[in-house]
Amino acid sequence: MSLLQRTIKQIFPQDTEARDTAKERLDNLAIPHWALGDLMDLSLDLAGITRTITPQMKKKAIVTMAGDHGVVAENVSKYPSEVTPQMVYNFVSGGAGINALSRQAGAEIFVVDMGVAADLKELAEKGKILNKKVGLGTDNIAVGPAMSRTMATRAIESGIDIADELAQSYDVFGTGDMGIGNTTPSTAIAAVCTKQNVEALTGRGTGLDDAQLAHKVEVVKRAIEVNKPDVKDGVDILAKVGGFEIGGLAGLILGAAANRKPVVIDGFISTAAALIAYTIEPFVKDFLIFSHRSVEPGHKAMQEHLGCKKPLLDLNFRLGEGTGAAVAMNLVEGAVAILTEVATFEEAAVAVADK
Amino acid sequence: MSLLQRTIKQIFPQDTEARDTAKERLDNLAIPHWALGDLMDLSLDLAGITRTITPQMKKKAIVTMAGDHGVVAENVSKYPSEVTPQMVYNFVSGGAGINALSRQAGAEIFVVDMGVAADLKELAEKGKILNKKVGLGTDNIAVGPAMSRTMATRAIESGIDIADELAQSYDVFGTGDMGIGNTTPSTAIAAVCTKQNVEALTGRGTGLDDAQLAHKVEVVKRAIEVNKPDVKDGVDILAKVGGFEIGGLAGLILGAAANRKPVVIDGFISTAAALIAYTIEPFVKDFLIFSHRSVEPGHKAMQEHLGCKKPLLDLNFRLGEGTGAAVAMNLVEGAVAILTEVATFEEAAVAVADK
Repeated sequence: MSLLQRTIKQIFPQDTEARDTAKERLDNLAIPHWALGDLMDLSLDLAGITRTITPQMKKKAIVTMAGDHGVVAENVSKYPSEVTPQMVYNFVSGGAGINALSRQAGAEIFVVDMGVAADLKELAEKGKILNKKVGLGTDNIAVGPAMSRTMATRAIESGIDIADELAQSYDVFGTGDMGIGNTTPSTAIAAVCTKQNVEALTGRGTGLDDAQLAHKVEVVKRAIEVNKPDVKDGVDILAKVGGFEIGGLAGLILGAAANRKPVVIDGFISTAAALIAYTIEPFVKDFLIFSHRSVEPGHKAMQEHLGCKKPLLDLNFRLGEGTGAAVAMNLVEGAVAILTEVATFEEAAVAVADK
Repeated sequence: MSLLQRTIKQIFPQDTEARDTAKERLDNLAIPHWALGDLMDLSLDLAGITRTITPQMKKKAIVTMAGDHGVVAENVSKYPSEVTPQMVYNFVSGGAGINALSRQAGAEIFVVDMGVAADLKELAEKGKILNKKVGLGTDNIAVGPAMSRTMATRAIESGIDIADELAQSYDVFGTGDMGIGNTTPSTAIAAVCTKQNVEALTGRGTGLDDAQLAHKVEVVKRAIEVNKPDVKDGVDILAKVGGFEIGGLAGLILGAAANRKPVVIDGFISTAAALIAYTIEPFVKDFLIFSHRSVEPGHKAMQEHLGCKKPLLDLNFRLGEGTGAAVAMNLVEGAVAILTEVATFEEAAVAVADK
C-alpha cells in the first residue's frame, strides 16, 4: 500500500466523546452562556481533533511551501517567476511577512522547496529549507497538464512525510505558500471543486488591472477545458491544473489529519490545497481551522465548500506565505486557554443565572 | 485647573509626519501592495499615536474596572449584583475569561474597584486590586441620576490617575469591565450619543428573553426621559445614566490619549466609556483601537459614531472583562512586527512588480 493510501486509512472524524465532554465543561464556565462565541466553537474542535479536553497548542509549526508555475508564461502575474526564489531567500533571512507574524505568534517556520524553478540546493544543504523538489516549476496548464500523475502523488506524499515528521514534536500546523502565479491554478482548482463560475472565483492576485483580470479568467477557463480534470479524483485535479506547493500542502493537510493534529489553513492557495485533500479524503474537513477570509473573491466559495461559514479572521489579507495562519495561531491558543484555564461557576463560587 | 482639564489639554491628534513616514516604508515592503490589509492600517495608527515608526508594544496592560448598578432593581439582568464582587474574586484568583486570554496575549491585568456594592478593602490591602471606589453601586437611573456630577468627575479622574501611573511602564492599554446590569447604562449612553432608537440599540446582555428585552428597552427610555442628559456634556451623561466603571474607563481612555498610548477598546461597555471620553474630547478618537464587534446589537452604531467602520475581530464575543481587547493585543503586536520587521523590496533584493 502506498504512503498516500496508508495515510487516508488513518483519517477518522473528530472524537464526539471528547467534544461532548468539552461542551459540558464550556456550558458551565462562569460566564454568560457561550459568551466567548467562536473561540468556544474552536475549543470543541480542538478537543474533537486531539481526543482530549486538555489539548496543548504550545508547539506551532508553519509550513511554507514554494513552487513555480509554467502558466506565468501567459502573463497572469504582475511579478516574474524570479521572485519565488528571491522570496525563499527572504524567508530564510527572516525578513518576510511570515517571519514577522510567526515570531509574534511564537511559531516556527519550515520553508519547503516543492518545485521552485531555481537551484536552491545550497539552502537545503545548510538546513535552511527542506528540499522536496518535484520539478523546476510546473508546465503551463493553459496548454496541458501541470505535471504527471506520478509527480502529483510524489508532491502529496512529500507533504505527508513532513507532517509525519513534524507530528513528533509539534501540536498544531499552519499552511503557507509562495509561488508567483499560483492564484491561477488555485482558481482552476476552486472552479473544478466548487463548480462555480470562473468569473466569480477569479481575483486580482498580486494586483492585476481589469484587462489583466479578464485575461486571467480566460486562462483559467482554458486550463480546465484543455485538461478536463476529474472532479472526483483529487490527484487528477492536482496533476492537471495544480502546482507542486499546492500538492505538498494537500499532503501536509492529509498528514495532519492522519496524525490528529489541527491544521490552520491560510488563504486562497492553502484553501485550494485543502480542496484537493478534501476530494481525496472528505474526513480531513474535521481537522481544518480556517484562519481568515482572503481578499480574493473565490475564497468564500472555497471555504463554504469545505463547510466553513465564517473563518476566524477577516483582515483584508492577500499575501499568503502562511501569514493568516500565523495570526490565527494566537486564537487557537486562546481557545485552548478558555477550555483549560477558565473556571466553572462551581469552581469559582459564582452565582448562576436566574432562570 | 483640575486633573480632567489638564488632561484634556494634553490630547492632540495623531502625528501625521510619523504616519507618512510609516506609510512610505509600508508602501515599499516586499509584498504586494498593502497585502496585510487591516494590520497595515493599524501600523499607521500606532506610528501616529506613538510618534515613531519603531513603536514597541511589548508591555501590555488590561485594566478591568468593576462597579455595581442601582438599575438592577428594575430586573434588567439575569444575574444578581452579588456576581460583581464574586467575579472580582474570580479575576484575582486567575480563573476568569480575561485571565486566560490575557495570559495568552502576554498582558497583565489590573483589576479596579470603581464602585462595587461590597467591601473589597481586603483585596485592595493585599495589593490584589486597585481601590478607587466612588460609591457602593450607582443609584437607579430609571428613577434619577446614577451619581452626582462630583462623583462622575471623580470616577473619570481615577481612571486618568491609573493611566498616568501605568503610562510609566506600559506601551499599550486595554479596557475591560465587570458590573452586573451595565449593558443598561451603556445602552442609555449609546442612545444619547448616537441619537439612534433605543429599540435598535438594546440587546439581551447576559441572556434576556423577549419579554425581558422589551422591559429593558422601557427602562432605558425611562432613564433618558427622567434624567435628560446633556448630549454635549460627557460628564453630565455619565452622571445621569452612566456607571462608576464606565466613568473610570472613560478616564483611562482620556489618560491614554494624553500619554500618547494606544488604548484597545473591548466590547459594548468599554465602547460606551469611549463615547463619554469622545464627548469630552473628540481627539481621543485617534488613540482608540477597536478590538471586536460584540454580539450586542448597539455596538455597531457606537463604533461607527466613533469612526470605526470595521473592528479588528468579529468572534461573537459578549463577555466584556477585556476579553476582546486581550485577543486583539496579538494583532497590535502583529502590526508592529509588520512595520518594524518586514524587509522592503530593496532590503530583501526582491524584484518589484511589473507595472
